[in-house]
Amino acid sequence: MATYARPVERLITELSKLPSIGPKSAQRIAFHIVRGRQDDAFGLADALREVKEKIHPCKRCFNLTEAEECDICRDTRRDQSVICAVEDPYDIGSIERTGEYRGLYHVLGGALSPLDGIDPENLRIAELLERVQREETKEIVIATNPNTTGEATALFIAQELEDSPVRVTALASGLPVGGDLEYADEVTLGRAFAGRREL
Amino acid sequence: MATYARPVERLITELSKLPSIGPKSAQRIAFHIVRGRQDDAFGLADALREVKEKIHPCKRCFNLTEAEECDICRDTRRDQSVICAVEDPYDIGSIERTGEYRGLYHVLGGALSPLDGIDPENLRIAELLERVQREETKEIVIATNPNTTGEATALFIAQELEDSPVRVTALASGLPVGGDLEYADEVTLGRAFAGRREL
Repeated sequence: MATYARPVERLITELSKLPSIGPKSAQRIAFHIVRGRQDDAFGLADALREVKEKIHPCKRCFNLTEAEECDICRDTRRDQSVICAVEDPYDIGSIERTGEYRGLYHVLGGALSPLDGIDPENLRIAELLERVQREETKEIVIATNPNTTGEATALFIAQELEDSPVRVTALASGLPVGGDLEYADEVTLGRAFAGRREL
Repeated sequence: MATYARPVERLITELSKLPSIGPKSAQRIAFHIVRGRQDDAFGLADALREVKEKIHPCKRCFNLTEAEECDICRDTRRDQSVICAVEDPYDIGSIERTGEYRGLYHVLGGALSPLDGIDPENLRIAELLERVQREETKEIVIATNPNTTGEATALFIAQELEDSPVRVTALASGLPVGGDLEYADEVTLGRAFAGRREL
């Protein structure tokens, strides 16, 4: 005999499949939904269906969109000569919130990791190189994650574009703003020294 | 202009309404769903609808059920002479998992808290008293939470049943098993002393 009624157990099981939600959280959320308003539960159910039915990659930059091209690609006020290459669509949100960048994007779909079977042909690198030529891009800002796989991906793309006139840049490494020198790891601190600037 | 496509933003908004899910987690979960299998998203959507459409309180004990009476109330092998009064339906799961209790339950629907406007008539205390008489219950185990409101509720129920032949008990307070004396708070430690037992 299950501890809870079958539909409640089913909801707990489905919720437990989500990332960062363990069995205890799943149970707490399920009971919150049982107690809560029907509209809230149905709203979430509809949002789940809608996102799977309507969302697909932008045909130009592979950002997520409802339309053929994403809002950013269609925004003619943005600088069409710069492309920022990111690993995942949600990196775009982080960069947009800084307000520092007004160019286009290109979603690679991950980072090179041969041990996990992720080779250049599994990423959208060929599409990026083709796009750079076709769109006569002037600069590519590589904004992969500052870790081993992200930096390997950045280096690979830079090498592929070595003989092309496009400028290839990467985000600066250094101390996080508001951080504490004492708690900075040695690699980050080393990079911060190497990249020191005139005041 | 929203950072993400509208259906993604909508899903993030709906997920953020859930307890213990902040904006960052909501975003991570939403992107997990976007990347994930359609079946998983639809499974969760269906589970959400089903739980709201099919689940209601058991007419006898107010546990959650699909049927008129819950599985526990319908299980004739359980001891029909003992009722364990709990605040919420999910407390039943915690108690069932101990395997120590084989009687029935009664869900009060919360704990007395006059400051929050929760008076005896907002809980299912009248239903409990009526049930004790009708079912000729021999013992009520009050398993409200070991905090101020839970204990006030336990005391209130005990007083209401003072003149009745039913035995009213409460869960033992004391040190949690596997805990450390050093980290026990003074109230718990005091209770553990007061409730010390012969070895």
